[in-house]
Amino acid sequence: MKTDKILLDHGSGGKISHRLISELVAPAFDNPILSCLDDGAVLDMEGKRLAFSTDSYVVDPIFFPGGSIGDLAVNGTVNDIAMCGAVPLYLSTALIMEEGFPLADLERVLQDMQKAAREAGVYIVTGDTKVVPKGAADKIFINTSGLGLIPEGVNVTGSNARAGDIIIISGTMADHGMTILTQREGLHFASPLKSDSAPLNHMVRSLTERFGKEIHVLRDPTRGGVGTTLNEIAVSSGTGIKIYEEKLPVKDAVAGVCELLGFDPLYVANEGKLLAFVSPEKAEDVLETLKADRYGKDACIIGEVRAEHPGKVFLQTRIGGSRIADMLTGEQLPRIC
Amino acid sequence: MKTDKILLDHGSGGKISHRLISELVAPAFDNPILSCLDDGAVLDMEGKRLAFSTDSYVVDPIFFPGGSIGDLAVNGTVNDIAMCGAVPLYLSTALIMEEGFPLADLERVLQDMQKAAREAGVYIVTGDTKVVPKGAADKIFINTSGLGLIPEGVNVTGSNARAGDIIIISGTMADHGMTILTQREGLHFASPLKSDSAPLNHMVRSLTERFGKEIHVLRDPTRGGVGTTLNEIAVSSGTGIKIYEEKLPVKDAVAGVCELLGFDPLYVANEGKLLAFVSPEKAEDVLETLKADRYGKDACIIGEVRAEHPGKVFLQTRIGGSRIADMLTGEQLPRIC
Repeated sequence: MKTDKILLDHGSGGKISHRLISELVAPAFDNPILSCLDDGAVLDMEGKRLAFSTDSYVVDPIFFPGGSIGDLAVNGTVNDIAMCGAVPLYLSTALIMEEGFPLADLERVLQDMQKAAREAGVYIVTGDTKVVPKGAADKIFINTSGLGLIPEGVNVTGSNARAGDIIIISGTMADHGMTILTQREGLHFASPLKSDSAPLNHMVRSLTERFGKEIHVLRDPTRGGVGTTLNEIAVSSGTGIKIYEEKLPVKDAVAGVCELLGFDPLYVANEGKLLAFVSPEKAEDVLETLKADRYGKDACIIGEVRAEHPGKVFLQTRIGGSRIADMLTGEQLPRIC
Repeated sequence: MKTDKILLDHGSGGKISHRLISELVAPAFDNPILSCLDDGAVLDMEGKRLAFSTDSYVVDPIFFPGGSIGDLAVNGTVNDIAMCGAVPLYLSTALIMEEGFPLADLERVLQDMQKAAREAGVYIVTGDTKVVPKGAADKIFINTSGLGLIPEGVNVTGSNARAGDIIIISGTMADHGMTILTQREGLHFASPLKSDSAPLNHMVRSLTERFGKEIHVLRDPTRGGVGTTLNEIAVSSGTGIKIYEEKLPVKDAVAGVCELLGFDPLYVANEGKLLAFVSPEKAEDVLETLKADRYGKDACIIGEVRAEHPGKVFLQTRIGGSRIADMLTGEQLPRIC
């Protein structure tokens, strides 16, 4: 698609946003450390490996079942740091608010942030507050940036998948995205959906402590969902990926809403799930470790890494066929996080 | 002022924004490291002292004489890190763009960011891009967060001013703020104003290398200007501050516009100036060091720290009188940075 303007699709996490990043943003900032596809950058600070990550949150609505823009902003950046294999330690937060934003809502958002920070065990240490005239922003946008320390013996990156690796997901897909969508559209269902917004750092630490370098890739499939994240890993690692449709976990209520509204849960955002690529001989033990965590009890194996078809993700369908599960071209859902 | 909504004044950097931070934000995030008044937080990472800072930039217009939202976003965070006495190393950047924002403008902003990063000698290592529907944000907002390393023997904080310290400013006041204002209002003057947006880290490094612990406080007087920053330092340090009206440097063109429009340059934002509080016996040498830098050639002494009247800033007027120069209560200029 040729355009001279920013489109909603540029923020989708799909193909068009990847093109924007790889053709415009990354070349502008070209340097040896720039992390384009991983969730954070890994920095060498006088012998220590630090993970550094940033995200702005613009979710609409700002309060929803299972969370708010406040805990999302903390959990999202905590998780990005954790997906580098790091122990998250410190967050910054920068608020942009619209004139007229209710102070009571701000207070609720701040409390959600602090509650999430406590659970994750991180400190919010520095911040910034900007106010723009009414109409120049929609309610509140929150940026969080984070810092963590990568323990010795951990080497996790999106380019580290190897043929033979087993792919594990820590729980069901699409809970966050479909919750936001149904809230926004004012749809009410008998079995209400709930965002999975959660900090995954303690679960990651259990994995890295126990399995060290046997954990090759960790990623949280947020914008663009599991499908997009797997494609990114396949490209970064130069491997093929095969997943099994019948093993992809989706709650019945979420699957129902997806079907009703025409969404594929494989491409819908999660905010409390991780994908782990691990050595095959450790896969069962990793699965048990994940299941022992409150945020990993529905963990399951969904696929494996292949040497053939590098850069491609194949889905083996329920009826035994196989098709390419590509990145989406356009936007499924704007302002999902 | 009692209100249950966010006002433009809450973002001014003046009294009302301080109250918001100290009564709502800081208590929510209460922890031993939280930096409320310094430009960044100082973190101990296994024996290394890191400075960590964040700022969101919402300036309107996004292009202006002397700079753009792009270099402002890099210089602003580089300077916040430098004001902790640190050598800035790495930045993150997170963009929030409105649907329909011209790609050509984005490209220009990114180029300005990279040019500023090169001059400062920092790498932009990680980022995020969000797009919101047309009307949900105004053009583009940029967050940058930054990391730097504090060299051994440097101890600079806003609470470190001591009676007897000499107060030096690195150049003229109010250039940035009055440039933005005249641009926004479509005012055109015979002698066009220009923002002072600049990275100050190399100048700071010259100071800390040469004078170490004799440099007590460094701050860049951005939102709220020199007047607000001096009040913050007086309160943090528990000292009085005396400044001399006749010594406050303001370019003639800027002074003229301030007078015409009724602004006091003491409270107007700067984006390429610093205030240094230094031991009296080193003041002349510090001044020479600043003047040797391209961004410090107009440096001059503007005042001194006193033991009496802790927490207050006094201005000795041209005619010899003395009056309290308090923080402003309300907003002078919204969306100045």
